[in-house]
Amino acid sequence: MPANPIVTLLSDFGLSDVYVGVMKGTIAQINPALTIIDLTHLIPPQDIAAARFNLMEAYPYFPDGTVHVAVVDPGVGSYRRAIALRLDTGFLVGPDNGLFSGVLSQTNVITAVELTNSHYWRTATPSTTFHGRDIFAPVGAHLASGVPIESLGDAIAPETLVQFQLPERIPTDRDIVGCIQYSDRFGNLVTNIPAADVRGKTWTVAVPESPPQMLHQRIIPSSQTYSDRPLGEAVALIGSHGWVEIAVNGGSAQSQLQMAVGAGVTVLLA
Amino acid sequence: MPANPIVTLLSDFGLSDVYVGVMKGTIAQINPALTIIDLTHLIPPQDIAAARFNLMEAYPYFPDGTVHVAVVDPGVGSYRRAIALRLDTGFLVGPDNGLFSGVLSQTNVITAVELTNSHYWRTATPSTTFHGRDIFAPVGAHLASGVPIESLGDAIAPETLVQFQLPERIPTDRDIVGCIQYSDRFGNLVTNIPAADVRGKTWTVAVPESPPQMLHQRIIPSSQTYSDRPLGEAVALIGSHGWVEIAVNGGSAQSQLQMAVGAGVTVLLA
Amino acid sequence: MPANPIVTLLSDFGLSDVYVGVMKGTIAQINPALTIIDLTHLIPPQDIAAARFNLMEAYPYFPDGTVHVAVVDPGVGSYRRAIALRLDTGFLVGPDNGLFSGVLSQTNVITAVELTNSHYWRTATPSTTFHGRDIFAPVGAHLASGVPIESLGDAIAPETLVQFQLPERIPTDRDIVGCIQYSDRFGNLVTNIPAADVRGKTWTVAVPESPPQMLHQRIIPSSQTYSDRPLGEAVALIGSHGWVEIAVNGGSAQSQLQMAVGAGVTVLLA
Repeated sequence: MPANPIVTLLSDFGLSDVYVGVMKGTIAQINPALTIIDLTHLIPPQDIAAARFNLMEAYPYFPDGTVHVAVVDPGVGSYRRAIALRLDTGFLVGPDNGLFSGVLSQTNVITAVELTNSHYWRTATPSTTFHGRDIFAPVGAHLASGVPIESLGDAIAPETLVQFQLPERIPTDRDIVGCIQYSDRFGNLVTNIPAADVRGKTWTVAVPESPPQMLHQRIIPSSQTYSDRPLGEAVALIGSHGWVEIAVNGGSAQSQLQMAVGAGVTVLLA
Repeated sequence: MPANPIVTLLSDFGLSDVYVGVMKGTIAQINPALTIIDLTHLIPPQDIAAARFNLMEAYPYFPDGTVHVAVVDPGVGSYRRAIALRLDTGFLVGPDNGLFSGVLSQTNVITAVELTNSHYWRTATPSTTFHGRDIFAPVGAHLASGVPIESLGDAIAPETLVQFQLPERIPTDRDIVGCIQYSDRFGNLVTNIPAADVRGKTWTVAVPESPPQMLHQRIIPSSQTYSDRPLGEAVALIGSHGWVEIAVNGGSAQSQLQMAVGAGVTVLLA
Repeated sequence: MPANPIVTLLSDFGLSDVYVGVMKGTIAQINPALTIIDLTHLIPPQDIAAARFNLMEAYPYFPDGTVHVAVVDPGVGSYRRAIALRLDTGFLVGPDNGLFSGVLSQTNVITAVELTNSHYWRTATPSTTFHGRDIFAPVGAHLASGVPIESLGDAIAPETLVQFQLPERIPTDRDIVGCIQYSDRFGNLVTNIPAADVRGKTWTVAVPESPPQMLHQRIIPSSQTYSDRPLGEAVALIGSHGWVEIAVNGGSAQSQLQMAVGAGVTVLLA
């Protein structure tokens, strides 16, 4: 076990109520020596796509042994599996609803369990609406404190985990067809096309016109930085996330282009 | 003293300015080994009702010895008592304005003091506008570091503490008349009727029609979970807080029913 | 090195994405024993004036040895210096764009370096858009862990640091001409006139009428507290920051007076 085990929290609970504070208190009741780091609690309510992306982006930047507790849980109270996963360098704890499929697209599962052992819950009779407090935070605290993942419940097959479906990207010699996978608070549109697909090449991005026009596409040039382009103009670049991204210098690409998660994007190679 | 004493912070200072950061710095100047946990800083400005509810909800989930510093303080700069309270399992520090009356409805006061000893303040000449930094955070840090509560000032009688007034609930064999005590960020309306009043019974909730109509009430069915009801329809359930709560599946009960804190609610028993 | 070295973070990254969480993970990968405290991440995007003010206000309240990492960085990706500064009691790390000029108006620089040594970055090939993660957070973590500031890069002359320009205040026997330097979330307008200029004197504040009228000024009385004035009326007072400040009891001075950062304010001495 590392000297300063970390538990991260990600949720759609917001910061106005004490839901997040209560999860932290629950963790501290189990082990007050754990370090708790917030990823974000402002995931739009029940937005599994946004949770999936943010968790995938944060995962590689944490120390070995970190336990990530993620609670965006539209199915709470109805049946869906509660799970814990052991990966190469860390652990994931939360509902089995596709939330983890971004991290899992980049990392293998070593062990997967369903959280059936109520001994590690806060109470054997959890509420029907707040499994973050009653199941996920306590289980995360126990994992970070050294409880073996096998103790938490029954092993399950990794291939049965729920996947959040995004169109696969399709690369050819001439172009790469992909999609938007996230829109950040600045309105930057992050695609699912990785930097490696375009690095060292001459490329542009084609997106549908907004408002849509028959057979018309808008071509967006690529650049190194936002500020290479005039204010208000769209630019494609490799974002800090390591994905091809569309931004507007001094503005919001999301507002200007009106593209939602899943919308198609084509990288054109020269 | 516990090994990792915790100080929690609750306020209406928001997260845009450095007020909260300054309180944390002030605590770290006194004892950098303390763990600081935010409950919330997004209490609506000067909303003692919301502060009272959130503090009451969070209190039971923290380890023994936790010090809760709460600063929603419309009276700062005019005279109102600054207080510290010792309860069974933790401490409360803040202005004496009713903020603590929710916790105190569920827990007894062991010791109450007025914070008259300026030795434990940040400065003997505090500002007239920021007692969070100058009095409450430093006193909280000293308490969590082992200073006896008796050293902080003059003992006061617990029965003189300011109460935030909510209508008492009135249970009979046929019904329970209560009120709304909180509306959370999802627009869920939390009543002051505890789960124990309805558990194992068949029950519905009656609320006034909105817009109000002479002698008409709206009857809301009870259920186990939000998702048992069609989208957009109101449902009464036992919320994660342990109170009877009114929610709208996929929507906001607060918007749909237009009920404020203190508004009457009747649970009808079958 | 202090026993519990603290790294503070201030940025305009917001709390909706995992940018802040990623900076914290990066710090924990270098030294998981560091304590991380958020100053604020809700600086308006690219608002160096707001960042400068908030950092200046927070700086004095932290323990010796604290490292403040501040990332409001409109120039990221184009050339601007990345710097670290050693002051009397703490360290500053961030872009050289005027962000630190508030702290530096009150404290001397002991050592200034440009962050040219990529050994202390997260990667020798940082992204063009997220130096907070790739340079500033890692450098802050190393500094707080005891790396000498001289190791981080080439020494630079403190007088070459970029200054954020605000009009200087001009005191005479009859009045003090100053300006607004910050508007907080409550709409309180903080001037650059320090408390010492008015303490023990009889004074009022003159501001332009809104909407502007030829040669007309509005005179605002001074008071000890917000609540001395009727609801909705403006009052000048010494704010918790230690500056002359204009507030509206129960309202927003910023909305009522329509004054921006840099707008002129005159304190009239009786």
